[in-house]
Amino acid sequence: MNTRFRLLALSAVSALLLPGAVFSQATDDGKARRAIPGYTMGTPVVARSPITDAEFEALKKTLLFTNEDVQALRMAARVLDDQIEPVLDVWYGFVGANPHLVTYFSGKTGAPNPAYLNAVRLRFGQWIRDTTAANYDRAWLDYQYELGLRHTRLKKNKTDGVESASPVIHMRYLVAFIVPLTATMKPFLAKKGHSAEDVEKMHQAWFKAVTLTAILWAQPYVPAGDF
Amino acid sequence: MNTRFRLLALSAVSALLLPGAVFSQATDDGKARRAIPGYTMGTPVVARSPITDAEFEALKKTLLFTNEDVQALRMAARVLDDQIEPVLDVWYGFVGANPHLVTYFSGKTGAPNPAYLNAVRLRFGQWIRDTTAANYDRAWLDYQYELGLRHTRLKKNKTDGVESASPVIHMRYLVAFIVPLTATMKPFLAKKGHSAEDVEKMHQAWFKAVTLTAILWAQPYVPAGDF
Repeated sequence: MNTRFRLLALSAVSALLLPGAVFSQATDDGKARRAIPGYTMGTPVVARSPITDAEFEALKKTLLFTNEDVQALRMAARVLDDQIEPVLDVWYGFVGANPHLVTYFSGKTGAPNPAYLNAVRLRFGQWIRDTTAANYDRAWLDYQYELGLRHTRLKKNKTDGVESASPVIHMRYLVAFIVPLTATMKPFLAKKGHSAEDVEKMHQAWFKAVTLTAILWAQPYVPAGDF
Repeated sequence: MNTRFRLLALSAVSALLLPGAVFSQATDDGKARRAIPGYTMGTPVVARSPITDAEFEALKKTLLFTNEDVQALRMAARVLDDQIEPVLDVWYGFVGANPHLVTYFSGKTGAPNPAYLNAVRLRFGQWIRDTTAANYDRAWLDYQYELGLRHTRLKKNKTDGVESASPVIHMRYLVAFIVPLTATMKPFLAKKGHSAEDVEKMHQAWFKAVTLTAILWAQPYVPAGDF
């Protein structure tokens, strides 16, 4: 792993302790909940997904996604709850070891932008939580479309107000990430003593959910009638 | 499984025996090779892929695709050699059980077109062979782009000269198919007595190769600078 990137990964962890970067907020049920800059699910600033309910149901069928997967994802949510940072360390290590991926997090000078990496990292962690919570309702669908837009040249770099070396995340990488995000997750799912069968169920459900996300994020790249 | 589709799947097998649909042809090395209507890899009528060698190498890195995967795919080629038809039976059964997928193989009247289904099936089988042969050279890249185009409204239905209910395969399904094509393959890879480790290696390599294919097929759906 690139040493600079390992440091960036660690500095992202420390960002959790920085005032302004992230803070705690009491929710109705009394639990502390982190507020993450740029994380806007369920708020009015989020785009509206053009996917219809019927199209979404058909898409889930094509992905063999059933209610059993919802249950398996929620089991995974409990398994991963205290492993989010180690998972992100692995993913950021992977990005850091690949200059063609680092470039998307780099400024105009070509050097990686730590503030940008940290901000994305916080949202990436929340994405794991939201994906495994598996409440795939209209607010979630709208937010996936919003996240897709934030990878296109329409909204990339705007959320964090950064100047980036790249005006767009090339769509091929949204889809390609299905493989590393799926392959690297299994050891984490196996770490809490679940049966091989349960680990496999969680892993398959995660694979489907990651693919579903990649598809929904790809929507704004493609002309409406072709998606 | 839809009974009509089971019959279509069986009739596709019988198409192997029909003159004109498929025939044998002696190749230079003396082995019989099937010629498949509309299968044009390596011929001058194929489109040229715009992906550069550097982009392709970076894409493979993102997919964690190494030479070990090439070897595992070639092992899978030997394992699957006499199982292509049963694999296609499973996939066609899946399509047949989902009306939202059947529609892509249907004529203007809404009824599935058996000739079209059969022609696609022969090429689908050859796609398994080509994917597991893992000779991912420029001719293969060009042909993946050609196959992508044949799913877009630019070329869909042209290869087989059909009138279809749909002028395009919606891109979301190209990506969604990563899941069923990956999940259904494992039992076939395990059928020839290989170790669990080898089966897992073949399966992971297949997962990466299917994702790679989906990405390359998606390229013509997306503006050049955004892919």
